[in-house]
Amino acid sequence: MSQSIPTPHYLIDAAALRRNMEKVARLRELSGAKALLALKCFATWSAFDDMRPFMDGTTSSSLYELRLGRTKFGGETHAYSVAWAEDEIDEAVGYADKIIFNSIGQLERFADRAEGIACGLRLNPQISTSGFDLADPARPFSRLGEWDSEKIAGVLDKISGFMIHYNCENEDFALFDRQLTDIENRFGNLLAQVAWVSLGGGIHFTGEGYPLEALAARLKAFAERFGVQVYLEPGEAAITRTATLELTVLDILHNGKDLAVVDSSIEAHLLDLLIYRLPAKIAPDEGPHRYMICGKSCLAGDIFGEFAFPERLKVGDRISVQDTAGYTMVKKNWFNGVKMPAIAIRDVDGTLRLVRSFGYEDYEASLS
Amino acid sequence: MSQSIPTPHYLIDAAALRRNMEKVARLRELSGAKALLALKCFATWSAFDDMRPFMDGTTSSSLYELRLGRTKFGGETHAYSVAWAEDEIDEAVGYADKIIFNSIGQLERFADRAEGIACGLRLNPQISTSGFDLADPARPFSRLGEWDSEKIAGVLDKISGFMIHYNCENEDFALFDRQLTDIENRFGNLLAQVAWVSLGGGIHFTGEGYPLEALAARLKAFAERFGVQVYLEPGEAAITRTATLELTVLDILHNGKDLAVVDSSIEAHLLDLLIYRLPAKIAPDEGPHRYMICGKSCLAGDIFGEFAFPERLKVGDRISVQDTAGYTMVKKNWFNGVKMPAIAIRDVDGTLRLVRSFGYEDYEASLS
Repeated sequence: MSQSIPTPHYLIDAAALRRNMEKVARLRELSGAKALLALKCFATWSAFDDMRPFMDGTTSSSLYELRLGRTKFGGETHAYSVAWAEDEIDEAVGYADKIIFNSIGQLERFADRAEGIACGLRLNPQISTSGFDLADPARPFSRLGEWDSEKIAGVLDKISGFMIHYNCENEDFALFDRQLTDIENRFGNLLAQVAWVSLGGGIHFTGEGYPLEALAARLKAFAERFGVQVYLEPGEAAITRTATLELTVLDILHNGKDLAVVDSSIEAHLLDLLIYRLPAKIAPDEGPHRYMICGKSCLAGDIFGEFAFPERLKVGDRISVQDTAGYTMVKKNWFNGVKMPAIAIRDVDGTLRLVRSFGYEDYEASLS
Repeated sequence: MSQSIPTPHYLIDAAALRRNMEKVARLRELSGAKALLALKCFATWSAFDDMRPFMDGTTSSSLYELRLGRTKFGGETHAYSVAWAEDEIDEAVGYADKIIFNSIGQLERFADRAEGIACGLRLNPQISTSGFDLADPARPFSRLGEWDSEKIAGVLDKISGFMIHYNCENEDFALFDRQLTDIENRFGNLLAQVAWVSLGGGIHFTGEGYPLEALAARLKAFAERFGVQVYLEPGEAAITRTATLELTVLDILHNGKDLAVVDSSIEAHLLDLLIYRLPAKIAPDEGPHRYMICGKSCLAGDIFGEFAFPERLKVGDRISVQDTAGYTMVKKNWFNGVKMPAIAIRDVDGTLRLVRSFGYEDYEASLS
């Protein structure tokens, strides 16, 4: 635990991160694929020293992520954005090793200004593994990438590679294998004409029991068939189960159920739980005492979920919400002025480091 | 427009704000009720000079909002929080004129430390006007306030008033009237024993055609019947239709529909559209050319909505999203590292003031 640091705080466990990183490194070694951290998921740069030796660099979804990746992580730096602005493109090219355009329109507008670095195009294979329409890049009328092979063939002279991001926490290697075969069949002609292909993120290869060797072999076969350098862009897979959100119980109520109010808010600190209507994870979630864990914001639905505890909860008890590294710190906000969680890292040797804390001045300066 | 300020930016229209404020002032005058700005909805303190003459002060949902209200707005300052922490309570009492506890447990724990200022309790009438379960304080097992009259009667010696927040953008005066009568019937015995009652926010009395005089008379009758000072806590009603989010079209795509990608993201800048699955408002939404307006984040569902335009859109066009003052700037976040909108105010005399802009350094410092 991290009792010496006041709650709320996100606590990153460098030992857990190391275990994921070793799987990333092994996949790179076996497959020949390069692995770039997807900063949209996790951009807590104080942890980058623990990741850099195991990954090739970063990929981004905006100019600011790109700059963070170049300056704080280093290595190979991919620039992607759904749409670059006129006044961003030169700066973006300055940071990037490769720039990936989302549309043929963007490619044609900006390719001239990206001379000197590799250009790529996002290819949308119109398949996806996401169970959430909100997160499905293959949803109808998707703006995410191009899918018309003929149109794409017309701009092949401007690009040296493709980015194809269509997986979403996909734990099923057989499904990955089948869908990649679909892509090979449908777009093989294009893939054979480029030098590199990024298969994006969303492959949950660091999960317990994932057949890493089979994935590596499949990626290697893909690379050899088309003569391409393969990239992966792990986000969640890189940092899954490496952080907790440490909270304190502030009040206990009995309104038909036993409720515990904690010093946090899902809307402010774990936003995806609210957006996707998902419960938080609390371990071990066992015992005779059941509580609904509630946030302290004004939102009626600010509920972490219902969980079992071995003992009755009381004011002052500590609660650790599990698996809170991905898509959390990058989305935290000042809703209700709820105190923003600090960020701490427990190093591999057990040392606890507080790397950022936020106070009233930060709240005031978030507005004007 | 505000062509001289780069997009994206929130643009607050002080003339529109003045129109709302004059309605607030008129309601206060006719009813005798006091009006406190609910900072959870709008806390852009550069606009407070334009609001202070028309309102009595602020109410809050956390220590930081409370401190902002005391230091930046002044006037009467109400402190409310779903749960105060042990290490917050003394500081909170130092800023507040009244402190309102959410539960009898919190009241009993902290009443001694609030000596010298008025104490109140949140009363949950178990009715609500919200169409969204997420935002309904009367939802089953709600943690928001006490509803057992007998238990409440047992702590009346510790409080001088109640806060009853149960409306949500309620435009229907007849419904308000009926529900207030229900509350009078059910809790009249308690109400007659306190000095003040806050009826919370959510009454849309600044809306076009709202019967302000009837509301004022109803509030006055309520106040006289129980011998209480009535408070209202307008959030959205105070700032409705006073701001736009100014955006630029970055790309046009044709993927079965005509799509325009703008330099913003609903998740990052207009979060409630994503949480409540609502479309943005674009005016006048008329003309022969229909576009799906899309955000530039990686989220497939980052869609502002589909709107009609008089002319074909092209890269570089400006788009103004309407009615973006409430629950927007207070929730903005760095998702995807998308550039955070600046905040500008167009004064009543037409002068444009840029009051806050955000850059890469702010993004980097949001993490660690």
